[in-house]
Amino acid sequence: MSGDGAAPGDAEENLRPLRTDLRPIVEAVREADAGAFVAVGDRFDDDLRYLTRFSGPDRPYALVVVPDDENADHAGRAVLCAPALFGEQAEREFVAAARDADAEPTDDAGAGPTDDADVEFHDGVAREVRTEGVGDHAGERAAGVVDDLADGANAAAEGDGPTVLAPASIPHDAAVYLERADNDLTSTDAVADARARKTPAEADRLRRVQRAAVAGMARAEAVLAESGVTDTTAEKSERGRRPPLRWEGEPLTTERLRREVNQVLAARGVRDAGNTVIGAGPSAADLHYVGDDPIRPGETVLLDVSPRGPDGYYGDVTRTFVVDGDGGWERRAYVAVEAAREAALAEIEPGVPAKTVHGEAAAELAAYGFDPNADEGEAGFTHGTGHGVGVSLHEGPSLSGAGELRPGHVVTVEPGVYDPEIGGVRLEDLVLVTDDGYEILAVYPFGIVPSERD
Amino acid sequence: MSGDGAAPGDAEENLRPLRTDLRPIVEAVREADAGAFVAVGDRFDDDLRYLTRFSGPDRPYALVVVPDDENADHAGRAVLCAPALFGEQAEREFVAAARDADAEPTDDAGAGPTDDADVEFHDGVAREVRTEGVGDHAGERAAGVVDDLADGANAAAEGDGPTVLAPASIPHDAAVYLERADNDLTSTDAVADARARKTPAEADRLRRVQRAAVAGMARAEAVLAESGVTDTTAEKSERGRRPPLRWEGEPLTTERLRREVNQVLAARGVRDAGNTVIGAGPSAADLHYVGDDPIRPGETVLLDVSPRGPDGYYGDVTRTFVVDGDGGWERRAYVAVEAAREAALAEIEPGVPAKTVHGEAAAELAAYGFDPNADEGEAGFTHGTGHGVGVSLHEGPSLSGAGELRPGHVVTVEPGVYDPEIGGVRLEDLVLVTDDGYEILAVYPFGIVPSERD
Repeated sequence: MSGDGAAPGDAEENLRPLRTDLRPIVEAVREADAGAFVAVGDRFDDDLRYLTRFSGPDRPYALVVVPDDENADHAGRAVLCAPALFGEQAEREFVAAARDADAEPTDDAGAGPTDDADVEFHDGVAREVRTEGVGDHAGERAAGVVDDLADGANAAAEGDGPTVLAPASIPHDAAVYLERADNDLTSTDAVADARARKTPAEADRLRRVQRAAVAGMARAEAVLAESGVTDTTAEKSERGRRPPLRWEGEPLTTERLRREVNQVLAARGVRDAGNTVIGAGPSAADLHYVGDDPIRPGETVLLDVSPRGPDGYYGDVTRTFVVDGDGGWERRAYVAVEAAREAALAEIEPGVPAKTVHGEAAAELAAYGFDPNADEGEAGFTHGTGHGVGVSLHEGPSLSGAGELRPGHVVTVEPGVYDPEIGGVRLEDLVLVTDDGYEILAVYPFGIVPSERD
Repeated sequence: MSGDGAAPGDAEENLRPLRTDLRPIVEAVREADAGAFVAVGDRFDDDLRYLTRFSGPDRPYALVVVPDDENADHAGRAVLCAPALFGEQAEREFVAAARDADAEPTDDAGAGPTDDADVEFHDGVAREVRTEGVGDHAGERAAGVVDDLADGANAAAEGDGPTVLAPASIPHDAAVYLERADNDLTSTDAVADARARKTPAEADRLRRVQRAAVAGMARAEAVLAESGVTDTTAEKSERGRRPPLRWEGEPLTTERLRREVNQVLAARGVRDAGNTVIGAGPSAADLHYVGDDPIRPGETVLLDVSPRGPDGYYGDVTRTFVVDGDGGWERRAYVAVEAAREAALAEIEPGVPAKTVHGEAAAELAAYGFDPNADEGEAGFTHGTGHGVGVSLHEGPSLSGAGELRPGHVVTVEPGVYDPEIGGVRLEDLVLVTDDGYEILAVYPFGIVPSERD
């Protein structure tokens, strides 16, 4: 944002400045007795997005982070090798934004994974952009920067380059460039660990995008509430599927409903990111359904809205509705899932093993007679209770995985039950683990019968 | 699409069925005397999206393609190793969609890179989904399928696995799994070559998303046409920047305008994909500006709209407007860019070296007094004249690169001139190279003064 033209609704939000503390990466390099950390990828690589805040090109670029033992003011140096034509953008997003963040007072200096509040984030790691020539390979550029800057003291023998930490999924051609320069590659969890615990500035952005997501949900619920049932009581008693709902004079379909939701997201300045999953009837049992189905009375309509905000953070909310239901399977499923949600939330606080949360949700669903360990395509609970959300829609921690919940974790809580013949019910919120419990990032009401929300 | 609830506006479009001919990949394996082709990536990997049509998960999955010499009905076999919980979606998008495509008559059988119209696309390569367990690594799964299916006859020695063709940027950990299974990796251009030449079914989708893009542009142009100038003639004569335009009672900014465009895209069922670049004044000279600036009279407003359609294909259109201009730099720039556009289009037909198109545009801009080889941040023409567009926003062919134009290439034509102190003018259309020239995929009018379009 610049100038006097703040976007509507953003000015009053007062988002804390966003910058990534690169010192944990420097520390990981030191601890591994390596010379550098290297990441190579394009704008779709979320590790790079997190580390650099560079919204970047759709071709590969590189980040190199090295410790700096010779300069008392800096823990290390970070060099972004930007493609030609992206130098200005890289300077703006990687360097100037970090500098601007320093200029503003903020209360989050000690809240990230590193608690050293004396060292300024920006000055903690000196940042620099080097622009590649057209046709340069990002891996080759990275190898050159490592050769230029990294301390080779840990090299095993004369002439060898230092060991390089890199994400395991670094592009193979980039890895080959580094290996040809005599760097040994070692994978690291440092980036995933840093990403899992959100700073207050990251939580601000997750709240903002989640508020947009629930605004989209409210639009969908209003459309369902406005939709009309055209069949008669006589038709309802038949076993066949009922005629679709009608809205604004046309049959209501999952695609029409999706477009309504996505327009609200666009008006709020976030992108649907292709993630507005809407299923109706049997397609509600399909976890990733983005096709076009008629929406019929009496059947579950499952909406899972996961937009991406301008800083790259995702929201994630799911609700399930039934228009003119008869109180059968879907009502039992809804009550069970609500109970599972309560049971899961009741466990969330720092120090709790993550898989306890899933275990409690599953036990509750089992108590209501649903199979808590169903396979895909079977009836029951077919997935985990939740996952981390950040600059990736799915990241750590998993509520079915190892480890304990810690303050700053942001996870979905999303129990659900499905029957491939009938439909599905899932209820999902996004919660931030706080020092003494949790915060629901954007509260949205429950209810199987859709109604107009203000 | 399924059922009786077609999305508004899609039903009458009659899109030809989309399926990817995997035989060129089988042929590349044979020609390289390799045993298999392997790709590993997530939903953001456009090669995999093209090859499988699987809209996929945000974690890695794998595709393995092997020749099949033992079955006269098939050229080869293709196995998609889908993550747990994505088996149904993979069956639907990778197998059933290809089968459905066969069932419908189509005129594009001979139009793809392969001209063998006797072999049905689906039956040309037998398709299969294998679902991974939770925690399986896609690279390990791919290595297992290669071991299971690939012909080891070309192995260099007993016990060796066959050579495997793979994209150069395959994730390094996947490459290591394959190499540990004694497969040598060799990179291939086969996927990029296949992607560059579009089938009629792909052109249908590019036309559809480009129509949505120009609808978004029309909305932006209408907003600009409706916007009011608040300063007086006396103020206009000053050298300082003028107060922003006002629209619907508030200052108009690039972010407000972007949200208007993106709502139209959402209503049309396409995603803005974070690609609605709008600059105003000096930020119009910044090629990838997505920030928030006030829009002032007399300054260039550059809009570059590149949405992504539901099948993954991108559109790409740029126009530049000035509200209440004074006929200075921006008018000269507009005339020059229009002339460069005409000069570039006049060259487009099969057999023409791609770089001729860029050369003609650059020469025209030079004739108008603009530097045709400016570097980023300098005044003049700072980029190439165009690039291919498909399931990636930037793919082959480049209009500055080697090679000749061929029927089925889809390229942008986008000359532009910039002055970092003033602004920028760019005009961009998306064109399909036809047998005897080109087709503009969605025609949109020109004019530096914004007006309401119907």
